[in-house]
Amino acid sequence: MWYTYVSELMTPLLKSLDFFKDSYEIRVAQLKEERAKGIRVIGTFCLYIPDEIIFAAGADRIVLCGGGTETIPVAEQSLPRNICPLIKSSFGAVVDACCGGNRACPHIPLVDLVVAEATCDGKKKMYEILPEYIPTYVIDLPQKPGSPEALEYFLSELRKFAQFIENLTGHEVTETALRQEIQSANDTKRLLHRLFSLRKRDPPPITGSEILRVMQKQFFLAPAQFREGVNRLCDEMEQITPGTRTGPRIMISGCPMAAGNTKVPDIIEQRGATIVVEESCTGTRSFWDLVDENADPWKALAERYLEIPCACMTPNDQRISRIVDLAKLYNVDGVVYYTLQFCHAYNIERFRVQKALKKEKIPMLAIESDYGESDAEQIGIRVDAFLEMIE
Amino acid sequence: MWYTYVSELMTPLLKSLDFFKDSYEIRVAQLKEERAKGIRVIGTFCLYIPDEIIFAAGADRIVLCGGGTETIPVAEQSLPRNICPLIKSSFGAVVDACCGGNRACPHIPLVDLVVAEATCDGKKKMYEILPEYIPTYVIDLPQKPGSPEALEYFLSELRKFAQFIENLTGHEVTETALRQEIQSANDTKRLLHRLFSLRKRDPPPITGSEILRVMQKQFFLAPAQFREGVNRLCDEMEQITPGTRTGPRIMISGCPMAAGNTKVPDIIEQRGATIVVEESCTGTRSFWDLVDENADPWKALAERYLEIPCACMTPNDQRISRIVDLAKLYNVDGVVYYTLQFCHAYNIERFRVQKALKKEKIPMLAIESDYGESDAEQIGIRVDAFLEMIE
Repeated sequence: MWYTYVSELMTPLLKSLDFFKDSYEIRVAQLKEERAKGIRVIGTFCLYIPDEIIFAAGADRIVLCGGGTETIPVAEQSLPRNICPLIKSSFGAVVDACCGGNRACPHIPLVDLVVAEATCDGKKKMYEILPEYIPTYVIDLPQKPGSPEALEYFLSELRKFAQFIENLTGHEVTETALRQEIQSANDTKRLLHRLFSLRKRDPPPITGSEILRVMQKQFFLAPAQFREGVNRLCDEMEQITPGTRTGPRIMISGCPMAAGNTKVPDIIEQRGATIVVEESCTGTRSFWDLVDENADPWKALAERYLEIPCACMTPNDQRISRIVDLAKLYNVDGVVYYTLQFCHAYNIERFRVQKALKKEKIPMLAIESDYGESDAEQIGIRVDAFLEMIE
Repeated sequence: MWYTYVSELMTPLLKSLDFFKDSYEIRVAQLKEERAKGIRVIGTFCLYIPDEIIFAAGADRIVLCGGGTETIPVAEQSLPRNICPLIKSSFGAVVDACCGGNRACPHIPLVDLVVAEATCDGKKKMYEILPEYIPTYVIDLPQKPGSPEALEYFLSELRKFAQFIENLTGHEVTETALRQEIQSANDTKRLLHRLFSLRKRDPPPITGSEILRVMQKQFFLAPAQFREGVNRLCDEMEQITPGTRTGPRIMISGCPMAAGNTKVPDIIEQRGATIVVEESCTGTRSFWDLVDENADPWKALAERYLEIPCACMTPNDQRISRIVDLAKLYNVDGVVYYTLQFCHAYNIERFRVQKALKKEKIPMLAIESDYGESDAEQIGIRVDAFLEMIE
């Protein structure tokens, strides 16, 4: 289908993007070397798992969320078909890799342990089948954040997890190491603020499709490697002379787009709009809020992570106001609300988001889609109509 | 459709069932009278909300889960279509009642407050829109029970809820009142054990369709009224002379069937089988485990309620072993696994249930359905094939 070639069709304006293209092999070699040295590699599926604890315990981490269709048929042998494609793709990759298949993401064999979380129904229940294929540890989350008791419960879960990973790596999670990792993770977050700030320009010096591919790398590269690439990119972007206006400014808000899934942003930009900000786990949700470096590191971690405005939380007022704030900050002409098919939490929360945006007179288009290509043309037609309306 | 008349076609063998048919008007009159006296009426949607606390605070309670299709179109104006029919039906009833509609369940205007819970994604997010129509209080639940910290967190949520309802009713939830209510609720549970025990007979003296209709009344009638009916029913059933064998003995396991929804059990029994036990919220899950009357009442309540084996919990090993135990205890020939359409938690847990039953050589048929009638014939054909296989 035409839209899969969009990234190739785009003029490679930014040379520093090559850094990310070349980064994959370097990172795989690094992970293999670490494993040879006995360093443990942790696979995660969610922003709610604090990397800081994993790194402080001397382990490495990669995120295993699947964005491809190849492993979905394998997954559907155990999981219902009518659940979210991200869950099926991720699960299928693990099953395929552990059963000697060759369609899976090649990262699974690099992982010693999966650290999962009780977020949405689909993931929570999928994780129960995962231990048949790969060691899995699940962190519980309160679903109604904001109370001291919820924070206390999450803190106890984080401390239990730290003990578990200390036993795995043989490295104690010291307060000093934790503070260092908090600072390192904050450095990444500050850098991403710099990157996203440059997109406030009109026109922005980079497309949303390119940014998404960079953000997806955040979940695979080592932090220092990722920062090097983002720094180069920011430096280059700052030198670019502003061009002419390139169509409506769009915010995407909703479910994450794991590596391999760029369908909807590609379609939107192919149709003439520019995505200037993403309110999602592969966008602002991953870096917007920093961990307090001056507070007790455990409490600061628990507080910051519990504040991630994912739709699995109730109520999720922080996300609603964040969306409105971002829409204004990035001067968007419209919002595309993206739901992975059968994701009840984001799908139902759409109602409140739409209401808040309507109040601000910001138009919104809702798209629910899976990883297949069959709805691409239909989505394109709806995007066209939306762009015509807001232009 | 033919199956909607099944209950009328059945020979009314048990005269004591009339008690339940006549109970509705009596209960509505009682609720109206209570409200006139200033007694608060609480609406709930889930077994995880301890009735004991509500009653101990001097309030009354009815369960508002919807089992009818009438209010689904109203709900779909705000909620996505592809979520569970129970959630849509329940939400639509509230919206319809509060907006002056006439298709809603007539119980909504009897309710002062909805007490909801963070269980599945669909309900959790629907509850966020509910306050636009009716006052709503949400109790959080840990999702990974079994740890002292999870119990502590749930206990704190129950105590917060008790304070809230004390403020509403002006009645303190004393330890004495709580102990009394625990005993009363246990009396109901003991009585339901007596009722279900009689179904171990071969053939059982009552059909599953009849039992379901009785169990649905548990969530609307006052406890004493419900117990009176069940006592009469048990007395009558104990006098019945056993008849001849009436087809395969079936267990239904899975999602709840709220009042108005009897489609699948009706089809199963119309096709010649007899349902002898239901592992669901409208079956054993509501009464199987008693609250410890000798322990601290708060801790005993928290422990017992957190042990309810709903698929929203992870892992839910207790449910898996309960299903196998019940299958043996009730000497079933097969299990029909029932999922409300788009209920991810029960749908995914099916995989583990099927595996456990396979190990025990107990056949299982999975049915996923909504409240519509369009799949009735197709379900009937699949049930026929299943019954032929196990006979």
